[in-house]
Amino acid sequence: MRVLGVDPGLTRCGVGVVDGTPGRRLTLVRVEVLRTAPDLDLAHRLLALEEGIEAALDATRPDAVAVERVFAQHNVRTVMGTAQAGAIAIAAAARRGIPVALHTPSEVKAAVTGSGRADKAQVGAMVTRLLALDEAPRPADAADALALAICHLWRGDASARLAAAAAAAPQSRIPRATRAARPAPGRRVAIGGTS
Amino acid sequence: MRVLGVDPGLTRCGVGVVDGTPGRRLTLVRVEVLRTAPDLDLAHRLLALEEGIEAALDATRPDAVAVERVFAQHNVRTVMGTAQAGAIAIAAAARRGIPVALHTPSEVKAAVTGSGRADKAQVGAMVTRLLALDEAPRPADAADALALAICHLWRGDASARLAAAAAAAPQSRIPRATRAARPAPGRRVAIGGTS
Repeated sequence: MRVLGVDPGLTRCGVGVVDGTPGRRLTLVRVEVLRTAPDLDLAHRLLALEEGIEAALDATRPDAVAVERVFAQHNVRTVMGTAQAGAIAIAAAARRGIPVALHTPSEVKAAVTGSGRADKAQVGAMVTRLLALDEAPRPADAADALALAICHLWRGDASARLAAAAAAAPQSRIPRATRAARPAPGRRVAIGGTS
Repeated sequence: MRVLGVDPGLTRCGVGVVDGTPGRRLTLVRVEVLRTAPDLDLAHRLLALEEGIEAALDATRPDAVAVERVFAQHNVRTVMGTAQAGAIAIAAAARRGIPVALHTPSEVKAAVTGSGRADKAQVGAMVTRLLALDEAPRPADAADALALAICHLWRGDASARLAAAAAAAPQSRIPRATRAARPAPGRRVAIGGTS
């Protein structure tokens, strides 16, 4: 499965693509940071972002797109641009019929570091390790986009296994689903160990 | 000149198109409110809005698009959806090469009622009068979208006259520009009187 992660922003928008299958190594496909000049008008900034995201979608043909879920309690100055850039990425994927998932920053941090309160350096270090890179992707927006893709690969897989377990055991849905969900943290360590 | 105004929102997005020329009556071309169900996922809501806005652009071929400028200090619950819906409208216009302008709610209220602190009822009443309608467009999002288009027609024209006056008098730019800008409030009353 191939996932394109987007860390949305008007000035810097991280786009990272990762291939992954359960229990196998994760592979970096592409990573970039799209930039638009702050002195450009909003319409042209959004259009430039859209073109960059569409180019990445065309080049990598992901199975899913994962975008950071934005909350209004973030920095008020940047949150509007984040919401606008995110909307452009979401619509570009939806227009191509690619499923879109939103993950919160703490879900992403928890997925790659084990802690929802990890800092940027920790996320960068784990992305580097999980993708077996020589150095951390920079700027942080690049690492964050890859972390979003990894988060989606792992969470999506866990959800699919949960659904499969529930479907296989209609008579005892709750205990089977609970058991199926439990191996997730262990699996994360195992995949981390392949780097 | 034809302007398409957008009062952005995920649940209700007002789209209103107005024709206008300086000193002549304003004409309603089209008004609608695009709606997306709150239980639909964000990707499909944005896609449905995009399709609705593109249909309005194709049907009316405006010279400019005016979108409400969103501030983060608005209601935190709705501001994200407003920013996302606005981004979709802005990108749809920019993709077609149509100039996009952003106007604040108080600029719009001041343009149609004379007061930046006018309430919804006042805006609705003035839109009804200025467009010579039998009754106020409902819901309020429809009236707000038309008010945005009217605001842009008037402000855009005032800016163009200011620029023309300044260009015509390079030796005495400041007094001429000041004089050229002054008739605007009177003109608003005059156009209001045509309804």
